[in-house]
Amino acid sequence: MTKDVRVGLVGLGRMGRFHAANLAGRIPGAHLVRIVDANEKVARENSERLGGVDWSTEYGDLLEDDRIEAVIVASPTPLHADMAEAAARAGKHVFCEKPISLELSRTYEVIETVRSSGVKLQAGFHRRFDPDYRTAREKISAGEVGDIYLFRTSLRDMRSPGFEFLKGSGGFFADVTLHDFDTARWMIGEIEEVTAFGAALSDPGFEEIGDIDNAVVVLRFATGALGVIDNSRVAGYGYECSSEIMGSRATLRIGNHRRVAVQTLTPDRVCQDYVSDFVERFAGAYRSEIEHFIRVVREDLEPEVGGADDAAALALSQAAARSYREGRTVRPESGIKDGAVFYEVRK
Amino acid sequence: MTKDVRVGLVGLGRMGRFHAANLAGRIPGAHLVRIVDANEKVARENSERLGGVDWSTEYGDLLEDDRIEAVIVASPTPLHADMAEAAARAGKHVFCEKPISLELSRTYEVIETVRSSGVKLQAGFHRRFDPDYRTAREKISAGEVGDIYLFRTSLRDMRSPGFEFLKGSGGFFADVTLHDFDTARWMIGEIEEVTAFGAALSDPGFEEIGDIDNAVVVLRFATGALGVIDNSRVAGYGYECSSEIMGSRATLRIGNHRRVAVQTLTPDRVCQDYVSDFVERFAGAYRSEIEHFIRVVREDLEPEVGGADDAAALALSQAAARSYREGRTVRPESGIKDGAVFYEVRK
Amino acid sequence: MTKDVRVGLVGLGRMGRFHAANLAGRIPGAHLVRIVDANEKVARENSERLGGVDWSTEYGDLLEDDRIEAVIVASPTPLHADMAEAAARAGKHVFCEKPISLELSRTYEVIETVRSSGVKLQAGFHRRFDPDYRTAREKISAGEVGDIYLFRTSLRDMRSPGFEFLKGSGGFFADVTLHDFDTARWMIGEIEEVTAFGAALSDPGFEEIGDIDNAVVVLRFATGALGVIDNSRVAGYGYECSSEIMGSRATLRIGNHRRVAVQTLTPDRVCQDYVSDFVERFAGAYRSEIEHFIRVVREDLEPEVGGADDAAALALSQAAARSYREGRTVRPESGIKDGAVFYEVRK
Amino acid sequence: MTKDVRVGLVGLGRMGRFHAANLAGRIPGAHLVRIVDANEKVARENSERLGGVDWSTEYGDLLEDDRIEAVIVASPTPLHADMAEAAARAGKHVFCEKPISLELSRTYEVIETVRSSGVKLQAGFHRRFDPDYRTAREKISAGEVGDIYLFRTSLRDMRSPGFEFLKGSGGFFADVTLHDFDTARWMIGEIEEVTAFGAALSDPGFEEIGDIDNAVVVLRFATGALGVIDNSRVAGYGYECSSEIMGSRATLRIGNHRRVAVQTLTPDRVCQDYVSDFVERFAGAYRSEIEHFIRVVREDLEPEVGGADDAAALALSQAAARSYREGRTVRPESGIKDGAVFYEVRK
Repeated sequence: MTKDVRVGLVGLGRMGRFHAANLAGRIPGAHLVRIVDANEKVARENSERLGGVDWSTEYGDLLEDDRIEAVIVASPTPLHADMAEAAARAGKHVFCEKPISLELSRTYEVIETVRSSGVKLQAGFHRRFDPDYRTAREKISAGEVGDIYLFRTSLRDMRSPGFEFLKGSGGFFADVTLHDFDTARWMIGEIEEVTAFGAALSDPGFEEIGDIDNAVVVLRFATGALGVIDNSRVAGYGYECSSEIMGSRATLRIGNHRRVAVQTLTPDRVCQDYVSDFVERFAGAYRSEIEHFIRVVREDLEPEVGGADDAAALALSQAAARSYREGRTVRPESGIKDGAVFYEVRK
Repeated sequence: MTKDVRVGLVGLGRMGRFHAANLAGRIPGAHLVRIVDANEKVARENSERLGGVDWSTEYGDLLEDDRIEAVIVASPTPLHADMAEAAARAGKHVFCEKPISLELSRTYEVIETVRSSGVKLQAGFHRRFDPDYRTAREKISAGEVGDIYLFRTSLRDMRSPGFEFLKGSGGFFADVTLHDFDTARWMIGEIEEVTAFGAALSDPGFEEIGDIDNAVVVLRFATGALGVIDNSRVAGYGYECSSEIMGSRATLRIGNHRRVAVQTLTPDRVCQDYVSDFVERFAGAYRSEIEHFIRVVREDLEPEVGGADDAAALALSQAAARSYREGRTVRPESGIKDGAVFYEVRK
Repeated sequence: MTKDVRVGLVGLGRMGRFHAANLAGRIPGAHLVRIVDANEKVARENSERLGGVDWSTEYGDLLEDDRIEAVIVASPTPLHADMAEAAARAGKHVFCEKPISLELSRTYEVIETVRSSGVKLQAGFHRRFDPDYRTAREKISAGEVGDIYLFRTSLRDMRSPGFEFLKGSGGFFADVTLHDFDTARWMIGEIEEVTAFGAALSDPGFEEIGDIDNAVVVLRFATGALGVIDNSRVAGYGYECSSEIMGSRATLRIGNHRRVAVQTLTPDRVCQDYVSDFVERFAGAYRSEIEHFIRVVREDLEPEVGGADDAAALALSQAAARSYREGRTVRPESGIKDGAVFYEVRK
Repeated sequence: MTKDVRVGLVGLGRMGRFHAANLAGRIPGAHLVRIVDANEKVARENSERLGGVDWSTEYGDLLEDDRIEAVIVASPTPLHADMAEAAARAGKHVFCEKPISLELSRTYEVIETVRSSGVKLQAGFHRRFDPDYRTAREKISAGEVGDIYLFRTSLRDMRSPGFEFLKGSGGFFADVTLHDFDTARWMIGEIEEVTAFGAALSDPGFEEIGDIDNAVVVLRFATGALGVIDNSRVAGYGYECSSEIMGSRATLRIGNHRRVAVQTLTPDRVCQDYVSDFVERFAGAYRSEIEHFIRVVREDLEPEVGGADDAAALALSQAAARSYREGRTVRPESGIKDGAVFYEVRK
């Protein structure tokens, strides 16, 4: 009987709890042996909820736990890089929530540490494991869409997190648009131009902290195709992650995500529910990305999305931030280094 | 320049007013020259609304109006047969709302009078002119559906008319299901078995007048295919006229009729409007059936739906009524007489 | 740490394999310790696929395995009753695929054995655990639908199983309609009248074995509400399990089940995929029913759907079969015995 | 009886023929008395098709026809301004297809001539008369949407017109995006910033004539709200005119335009048709805009969309063209002059 991959997890916020619940009985081949959170109450209560898994408040306990082969880093963003590096140095494979760091140079250091430690590094771009997006990408790869003319995508939260969170989030483009940059690259290809527009419309607090709550980002891909991203922190009606790919042979649309396939008809109208947040929308994708990570570890595979992808998305989000700040189109340079893509924003 | 067909219309209830408004400027080749309603105020006010067309309270005025070549009979059902016959005898072509009569023998007399008068008779089965139903029927005729296994159809009103109306309506199956019998025959073919189920659920008043407010009717077609009709007077949410045809090669669905293609998303749900009555749902079909009638008159064509179809639908509704009353399946006999279908319910 | 429920499973056909895969790592709190199939190759290969779980070709091995607390009976229908009884006698809780038996008296014997053995018995009516159906039922219970006028449901397979399977299936109504009877009772309430119509349309083989491939069944509920079931073995386009509940306050619709939320637009049309079989449509519900069973065992609960429900659905399917055979409405009697519903078809 | 408005029409291209067919019997209160086209065959054949209406090859015949009170100018764009002015000078009311001119100063001259002639001028922005767009706008006006954050709209043709047409079209932004500028202003409000992106992707011929086939235009409204327009000449799958308005209280979506409400289910998929061109999509809106024009003339009203709106849309399309050419955001100035909006692009 093949042995289960023994996993430790750090950070019991919303994503961390979700990954932990999956690892405790819903992902074949995985065995969650330790959870860590700086808040003792949180750590202990989650341990109980998960049937008594070992818990600590110190990340060091996890690093020293010799049973653990792989670590899920789901702590706040500023801790990602150090924790990922420490895990790698301890010889443990790493799944790290995005972004690895808000500084590109630091991301590259982590990538280098991981490489020299000989462990795996998977970045938390869950959309790559969503059945809708995978189906669409397969159709593109199979030539069903033909030449691509336009990529259009929306990522919108129902409500904004609090301003305290936002201050440490790295700004709108690093916190929200980052996901769309990864999806754009993955589905369509590399990006040559980024022009970003933003507005603070729902609350003066956004302007006070120098941030925005709505944005539009226009892309030009290396193929010449156009791209449009729209993002919002305050969509109000629900959570939106939908896309359209218009091509010479076909156009694909991903969207209309509902919780259940139930319509309610009352006088003069028919209604359906709508997903309200990312965990609801992407429950399956979050499970699949961890399943993938377990398989990567067990079968010694390359993860489908790794450090270089995280760095590329971060670089593009920095290009967007600069474009917005300077009111002009930014043209990042990109290339291949050590077999992986890299992006650089010089001017 | 081809001369317009000069039309008279009798009966300014809801359907009559709708036809009149179409005839007064929305149907090329038609010229509405006189409207008649027993209620003087109704007649006069509609004349004003229609830009001053001649009006009467006497049907005789219409019959004697030599300009008039064609008559729209939109009066209450009990008057249909006499008015249609009188028009035919006056040499005028007839469009008659369904049913021509609630008595089958009387319907056949009208058909005979029309034939001997050499005029046209079109029956008001508007669904035959609805683009959705026509498209579906074309697909069936083209073999796209293959052998048909099941025909399923719903006809439901949002709210019931008042009990006064219902008492003179000929009963549920003649007033509501009649349309579905015509559609079933037109789309699928002749019917060999009728089994009807009914219930009075929304108001004790239905039982008091010996009527029902909801029904299910099961059909067996001559081909062996099964059919299911469901009807309601009290659907509540809106007006429904939807159908499904399941076949060996494809299944067709007609439904989800909305007024406008606008979705409204509010927290956690997405809504669309829904049609609320037959005029809203079938505005185009009502116009098209009159356009067809005008063309029938102008170009000396056979109407796509005539007296024999009206008689067949009536006979089938009588079979349903008897089935419901006697709690058993009824098998009407049918055949071809004088080139037209006829149905008879013997046992 | 709460101990996992140790489960044995017998029958590695399609459903058995699906349950086994879930039990091996996707259902928290469950531990699959033995699988059994009469076919050695099947048993051995599935063991390998599941990471080396113990396997046997003899059901007795499972009964004698003291580790096992609970048994999943997923063998062919004729074996259900004996295997369920044997498990109960061995003191093991039982999850039994539907129907427990094709003979009502035998079903009641099994229920009695289970009761006297003091173990749990859950019947495999997975639809009770489907989020769509649960949501709809909650809305009904909460009064959102008001008084119910019509329950309409479709259960259709894309393609028929082979005639060999069909001969042992207990006939169309026991094999297909059974599920709809359970859903009808669960969502709307007890049933007083059953009238069944059937046809063999796609292949003469159905008539040869005395069976049908399409059916319509009309119900009358104790409340007076009407019900319509349509079933097919040969829907062709895909797998359908959709329903409509029309009430005085609202109408609910469950349906339009797609695999992924991707639309493909090509010249003049827009397409979506459609589920093609029950495992695809109900993957979540199959997992949830087993999760429920594990919870029932762990927490000593009553299963949401037990032996009496299985017996009721079987009795109703027998009423349908008799109605179809005799061409008339059948009125089963029902009541409460020992705190559970029972149905009887006398005439 | 109110007298019909007697109308002349010049230009029997696709739009002209469509308007003429409506005026000949589908628009109450209108009487088409003369059609003009430089091509004798076209003029004569259309006269025949319309039942023998008078026809000419000379526009002067129309101007001198004293019966004619109102003119529909549906000739090629370069002729609009002169013909509109001539009609106004002849004392005839003018409905002019958009744009009145490709030169803003010339548009203002026409507006001035119309004003001094005391006749009406309606511009051909049909979308203002589409029930979907009107419904959405009413919801916005009623406050149902709250503060607007994002306006997103797509206008796409299935196939491009030929390069000969394109050369005289005034360029992509004047020929295609113009409509969206009008809709944006009408639904959301005045526009302060325009940033345009374009690409020639489907055929090298676009680049050869210095034009593009796909574009994205980002707007910033005076309220601060963001806007995104995407346009294509080569969408391939069909004709698209859909929009989304995201606001603080609700989000509205207009789209999914189908010809008929028929779904076709074949193995593993469900398909619907899709509109393929503007006449199909906007048949009702084209009729309504002419109905509105007739009412404007009959009842001496101000048209809902006039010369100043045409000029504003043209100015914004010029801003887009300059933005695209110069690779930067353009900020047109706008204000109110003589009670009407005006836009100016200085820098």
